[in-house]
Amino acid sequence: MDVAPEVYASQLAQLLKSKDRAALLHEIEGVEAADLALAARHLPHEETVELLKLLPEEFSADVIVHLEEDDREEVLERLTPREIADAVEEMASDDAADIVAELEEEKAGEVVELLEEEDRKELVHLLAYPEDSAGGIMALEVVSVREDRTAARAIEKIREAFHEMSEDFYYVYVVDGSARLVGMVPLARLILAAPDQTIRSIMDEETHAVPATMDQEDVAQIMEKYDLPSVPVVNEEGLLLGRITVDDIVDVIREEAEEDYSRLAGTGEEEFREESITRKVALRLPWLVTGLFGGVLSAVVLSRFEKNLQRVIALAFFVPVITAMGGNVAIQSSAVMIRKLATEDISAREAIRRLFREVGASIVTGVTCSVLIFLTAWLWVHDRRLGYVVGGSMLTVILMATTLGACVPFALFRARIDPALATGPFVTTSNDILGILVYLTLARWMLS
Amino acid sequence: MDVAPEVYASQLAQLLKSKDRAALLHEIEGVEAADLALAARHLPHEETVELLKLLPEEFSADVIVHLEEDDREEVLERLTPREIADAVEEMASDDAADIVAELEEEKAGEVVELLEEEDRKELVHLLAYPEDSAGGIMALEVVSVREDRTAARAIEKIREAFHEMSEDFYYVYVVDGSARLVGMVPLARLILAAPDQTIRSIMDEETHAVPATMDQEDVAQIMEKYDLPSVPVVNEEGLLLGRITVDDIVDVIREEAEEDYSRLAGTGEEEFREESITRKVALRLPWLVTGLFGGVLSAVVLSRFEKNLQRVIALAFFVPVITAMGGNVAIQSSAVMIRKLATEDISAREAIRRLFREVGASIVTGVTCSVLIFLTAWLWVHDRRLGYVVGGSMLTVILMATTLGACVPFALFRARIDPALATGPFVTTSNDILGILVYLTLARWMLS
Repeated sequence: MDVAPEVYASQLAQLLKSKDRAALLHEIEGVEAADLALAARHLPHEETVELLKLLPEEFSADVIVHLEEDDREEVLERLTPREIADAVEEMASDDAADIVAELEEEKAGEVVELLEEEDRKELVHLLAYPEDSAGGIMALEVVSVREDRTAARAIEKIREAFHEMSEDFYYVYVVDGSARLVGMVPLARLILAAPDQTIRSIMDEETHAVPATMDQEDVAQIMEKYDLPSVPVVNEEGLLLGRITVDDIVDVIREEAEEDYSRLAGTGEEEFREESITRKVALRLPWLVTGLFGGVLSAVVLSRFEKNLQRVIALAFFVPVITAMGGNVAIQSSAVMIRKLATEDISAREAIRRLFREVGASIVTGVTCSVLIFLTAWLWVHDRRLGYVVGGSMLTVILMATTLGACVPFALFRARIDPALATGPFVTTSNDILGILVYLTLARWMLS
Repeated sequence: MDVAPEVYASQLAQLLKSKDRAALLHEIEGVEAADLALAARHLPHEETVELLKLLPEEFSADVIVHLEEDDREEVLERLTPREIADAVEEMASDDAADIVAELEEEKAGEVVELLEEEDRKELVHLLAYPEDSAGGIMALEVVSVREDRTAARAIEKIREAFHEMSEDFYYVYVVDGSARLVGMVPLARLILAAPDQTIRSIMDEETHAVPATMDQEDVAQIMEKYDLPSVPVVNEEGLLLGRITVDDIVDVIREEAEEDYSRLAGTGEEEFREESITRKVALRLPWLVTGLFGGVLSAVVLSRFEKNLQRVIALAFFVPVITAMGGNVAIQSSAVMIRKLATEDISAREAIRRLFREVGASIVTGVTCSVLIFLTAWLWVHDRRLGYVVGGSMLTVILMATTLGACVPFALFRARIDPALATGPFVTTSNDILGILVYLTLARWMLS
């Protein structure tokens, strides 16, 4: 698509206004659902709904799947349960389940009631899995064949399944007499097989199957590690349930990275897709008020040292640099630990080894920064003792912040809490308070 | 693989020590290259090299491809050009090019010299593309067929190409008489076609082909948007050059997200894969010294207000909360803008619309935080005028930080500089300095 989405949107809006359905359909011919969904971001939701109603059902369903989540919410609110059900029946099972899950409970119930028997069963089955499990992201459309059948039979099965599958599948899955997954055959190999070859003789036994209960991030790790375009999903008995394709995993990887990023930034992850001011405020204010409260505590700590500050006012000059450096160092070491934990499972021994390296690195950076700030304080304020205080507390704060930065994420990980919580305003502010405490305690002790 | 990589590594180490090649090969049977590469992280590099020499050539090549970059560097240093060339000849063209690109120039030259004619040509061709372009990540192994040929001929072409392809391909590409890409056929459709059907009658004309010069992040966006398992790569004349599969793109997406994350954290992105203390120090120290320098500037600014501080020492208490809040707010709005820019191309109008929303949200959060800090200052220090100063500068700093946070990434993006540079110690520190300046200027003006 060569035109910008907003330009295309205004073309569509004009055609919608002219009520010329034929011209509209002609214009849309050859345009892909993903592009139309992108243009819809720049249309009022009423017009998007009007557009969807004019489109052929299958295409309309495809556009709904591709809409951004916040647009989709608005659009679905404006469609009747009947209209949604018609669209849902055109979708692949995983998309259908995602969209029904986004509806309000009551409306979702009505939509499910309106579905055909088989679609309803599939949907209810899928909705039973947690949203972020393998079962929650799998599609039920797979081609499977028994291991004792021939290549010709497998091709026959593809033909039978074809009307309800997209063409984006790469493997025929192989099951035994009790429907347990025992292997898979890449399509390219099936093409080259003689029609009477048994499936068993051409299948791979290693399928990298994942249990339906596995967390989606673990599925992503497996697919990434072995470069798999798709994986089969099985239940506890090893029965084949469905498959996950790599495009679903791409979303998981992006979401996971964005989640860590948003934690570090102190925003909600949803914000990257969020538009409304009210939601922005609701997501950010808790972080900010926490930060503010921490800041007030810093102020209280400072006030306890009022006499020292009054005697040597220059002490106050170095408060921002001490707190800023502690924060910078803590974020550096926690960020490295958090990303490591997001991609690997780390043993306690490995964590200790990493901690030693972090501390090792921070001894070097800490001593460098301390010497620099000592020289600054000494040469500028002409007070060598003040230099000792500032330099000494800089070193202490850097070492302390590194240790906390590396340990807290690991401790959270062990306690099965998201390690990324070790960043963000709360932790940064605690670091500020600790830094000020170390600095002024040292000052009181050395300068009195 | 059910054992932990470090446990498996120690098993391998013992077998290596016993020099029993048969037992070692028996142990490794059925293990995947990715798992062996993971275990190698816990082996001394000498032992990894020893292991690689014992393995069948093809498998050994596969393990090298799966090693982490830092391990691979060490391993390749210990292999002769002849050994590397043998491994490279077993690899897919894209992996071969990546690995030769990692070698020192002289050794890379020697390796290329030792390759067979055809492999050498391919490699030189691939190495000519920038590393982060579509050409730089594509593989040359594609199956293509002319549009006027039959389905049976396409299957014949798959058979011919099979020995040098992995089985992970999903499309047969269709070219015209001058080798220009004109369409593609999904394998599933080819399976169902009658042998004498022409390729033209079953092909899709939309191929989502990307030019070889396209940036890899743009390729990732296209594949993600249209949910494509692979895309063909063409040159300026539209000639088919190769293909990119989604597993290469998964790496791009992860790297891109990690790059933004590492910028925000003030570490190098390489650090997520980096082990050595020296490298850690080299990556972090520049950021920290920048931060330190900024901190010294904060101190200088504070010292210019020495008299005001001395008169009302309570002013100093609120310095950390003002700087911290400015930093928090700036990071929130820049992070949202940066992620948005990473996934979409934003027009100036759209940017302004977003800025208004950011400012709108920050008026609400700013007023809330200002009132809270005003009440704190007033009730605690019993000085209403101090409350006005702290509350007023809190609001100013929050509005200013939001505006900067949202505008700077966009300006950098427009200037074709990575927007993620708008975060990290440099920007945070400038924010500190600005915050202190606003706060104490307001104080001097209102309290004197």
